[in-house]
Amino acid sequence: MITPFSDRLADAVRAKTSSLVVGLDPVLERLPTELVESARSQYDDPRDQAAAAMIQFSRAVIDQVADKACAVKPQIAYFEQWGPPGLVAYEQSVIMARDAGLLVIADVKRGDIGSTSAAYVRAHLDPPLPDVRADAVTVNPYLGSDCLAPYLEAVDALGSGLFVLVRTSNPSAGELQDQPSGEVTVHERVADLVAGWGAERVGQCGYSSVGAVVGATAPEQLAALRKRMPSTWFLLPGVGAQGATAADVACAFDDEGLGAVVNSSRGILYAYGDPGQEDWRQAIGDAATTLRDQLRDAALGASAE
Amino acid sequence: MITPFSDRLADAVRAKTSSLVVGLDPVLERLPTELVESARSQYDDPRDQAAAAMIQFSRAVIDQVADKACAVKPQIAYFEQWGPPGLVAYEQSVIMARDAGLLVIADVKRGDIGSTSAAYVRAHLDPPLPDVRADAVTVNPYLGSDCLAPYLEAVDALGSGLFVLVRTSNPSAGELQDQPSGEVTVHERVADLVAGWGAERVGQCGYSSVGAVVGATAPEQLAALRKRMPSTWFLLPGVGAQGATAADVACAFDDEGLGAVVNSSRGILYAYGDPGQEDWRQAIGDAATTLRDQLRDAALGASAE
Repeated sequence: MITPFSDRLADAVRAKTSSLVVGLDPVLERLPTELVESARSQYDDPRDQAAAAMIQFSRAVIDQVADKACAVKPQIAYFEQWGPPGLVAYEQSVIMARDAGLLVIADVKRGDIGSTSAAYVRAHLDPPLPDVRADAVTVNPYLGSDCLAPYLEAVDALGSGLFVLVRTSNPSAGELQDQPSGEVTVHERVADLVAGWGAERVGQCGYSSVGAVVGATAPEQLAALRKRMPSTWFLLPGVGAQGATAADVACAFDDEGLGAVVNSSRGILYAYGDPGQEDWRQAIGDAATTLRDQLRDAALGASAE
Repeated sequence: MITPFSDRLADAVRAKTSSLVVGLDPVLERLPTELVESARSQYDDPRDQAAAAMIQFSRAVIDQVADKACAVKPQIAYFEQWGPPGLVAYEQSVIMARDAGLLVIADVKRGDIGSTSAAYVRAHLDPPLPDVRADAVTVNPYLGSDCLAPYLEAVDALGSGLFVLVRTSNPSAGELQDQPSGEVTVHERVADLVAGWGAERVGQCGYSSVGAVVGATAPEQLAALRKRMPSTWFLLPGVGAQGATAADVACAFDDEGLGAVVNSSRGILYAYGDPGQEDWRQAIGDAATTLRDQLRDAALGASAE
C-alpha cells in the first residue's frame, strides 16, 4: 500500500514541526567562493565547474536544513541552464535530499498536451532511475485537464503529489490570473478545477495530493483561496526575497498547523550575503531555523485566534 | 546587425517554399528497430542506449527534411525523460539541425517568475555553449508580463524568437483558454498581450518575433485569431496525429504564404509505421514532402480566394 503524497507531507510537517520548504535555486555568482574555486580547480569545462559547485552547495544546504525543513524544492531552471552537467547536479541534489529524509518537490512548472505530459511524468515522477524520482512536481494549468491526466495517474499509481499553479507570487501574476472569468476570476476557476481533481484524492490528513501554488505575496487572494479550497495542500512561495512574511501566510494553516507549506529560496540559500563569508553554512542553518520558528508561531497564532 | 527571428523565419519559408516545421518527439518504442538495436549493442545503461538511438534518429530525420522544412521543433520532454544523457541527445539534435540549415524552435513551454525565466533564457536562448542555442522557444503565458520580460530581452539583444501559447491544440484546451474574460475570452486576452509585446518587434517581413502558438485543431479560433493578430507569426500544431489537415490552416497564411508555420511531429516521424520497416528513412522524407506540398497548396489557395 503506497502512502499518498498528501499524508507523507503531513507526516513530515508533524515530525519536524516545520512547514518550511527550502528552495534550491543555485546561482553561480552567489555561491560561496570556496566551492566555486574548488570546482574550478577540478574541472576545465565551465558547465562541469558550475555543476560541481552546485552539487557541493546542495550538499551543504541539505545538511543544514534536513532537520528544519519538511521538503526541498529544487528549481530546475537553475540547473537546466548548465545543460547535461547541470541536470546531473539536479539529479544529485534530488538523491541527496531523499537520502537526508527530505521530501522533494521538483519545481518544473511543466504543462503540455497529454502525450508530452506523459513524458514529463516519466522525467520527474516515474523515471528510469528510481533514485531521482521527485515526490511531487509543480504543474502549469493553462492547457486544462488532459495536460493533468498523466500526472493524476502518477498520483494514483505512485503516490506522487502535484502543486498546480493557481495564483502565483510574481508582480504581474494578476495580469491574467485575476481577470474576471464569468462569475469568478481566472485563478478561481483554476482553483475549482484543482479542487475537483483533488476531491477523490484526499488523504487521511484531510488534504489532497493535488495541491495548489498560491503566492504569499497576495494575502487577500490567499485568504479567499483557503476558504475556496479547504482540502487542498497549498505551496506558498514569495516569503523572503519576494517580500512576504510569515504573518502573511498565517491564514493558510489549520488548527493543527497543516494545510500549507511555505517555500523560501534566496532568503535562506544566500543568508550569508557575501560569497566570501567563511561561516556561510551556519548562516544558512540559522536562517532556516528562524523562518521555521516564525512559521510555527504564525500557524499557532492563527489557530489560537 | 542581428537579423530578427521574424525575418530569419520568413527567409527560410521563402528559400524552401515551405512552411513545414518538423517536430522531433522521439519515443523509444517507436524508433526504427535497427537504431535501437545498434544503441543497445553499444551501451549498457538504458538511458545511454535511449540517447544514442535518439541521436541517430534525429540525424536521419534532419537529413531527410533539411530541404523540405523551414525549421525543426524538438520537444524537450521526450529527451528530458532520459535524464542527462537525454539532454545530451537534445543538444546534439539542436546542433545537427543548425548545421543542416534548419531553424530550431525549442518546444519547452517554460513559464516562471522573472528571475527563473532569466535562467530558462540562459538555458535555451543564450547558453554557455552557443552551438546549442535555439532560434526560438515556446513560452507559457500564465504568469504574465514579468515572466516574459527576460525572453523579450533575448528577442531584442540576440534576435531570438518566441511562440507564446495562446490557444493550444489539445482536446481540453478550451477549459480555461475559451472561458469568457470580461468582453473577450481568456485566449483572446492572451492574444492581445502577445500582440502588444510584439508591436515594437515587427520585422521587415511584416511579422513580429513574438509569435503565438495556435492549435490547428480549432479552425474557428484560428480564423478569429488571425484577424486579431495580423502581425504575429503563428506556430500551428495539431496537423497530422492530432487530426487537423492542411486545409484547416489555410486561413493563417497571407498572400505571400507567410504569417504561419505548421508543425507535424508524429505524422512525419513515424510515417513508416512498423519500427521494423527497412525503408523508414524514405517514408519520413516522403511524408515531409507530402505535407510541405499540401501546405503550399493550402497557402496558395487561400491567397487566390
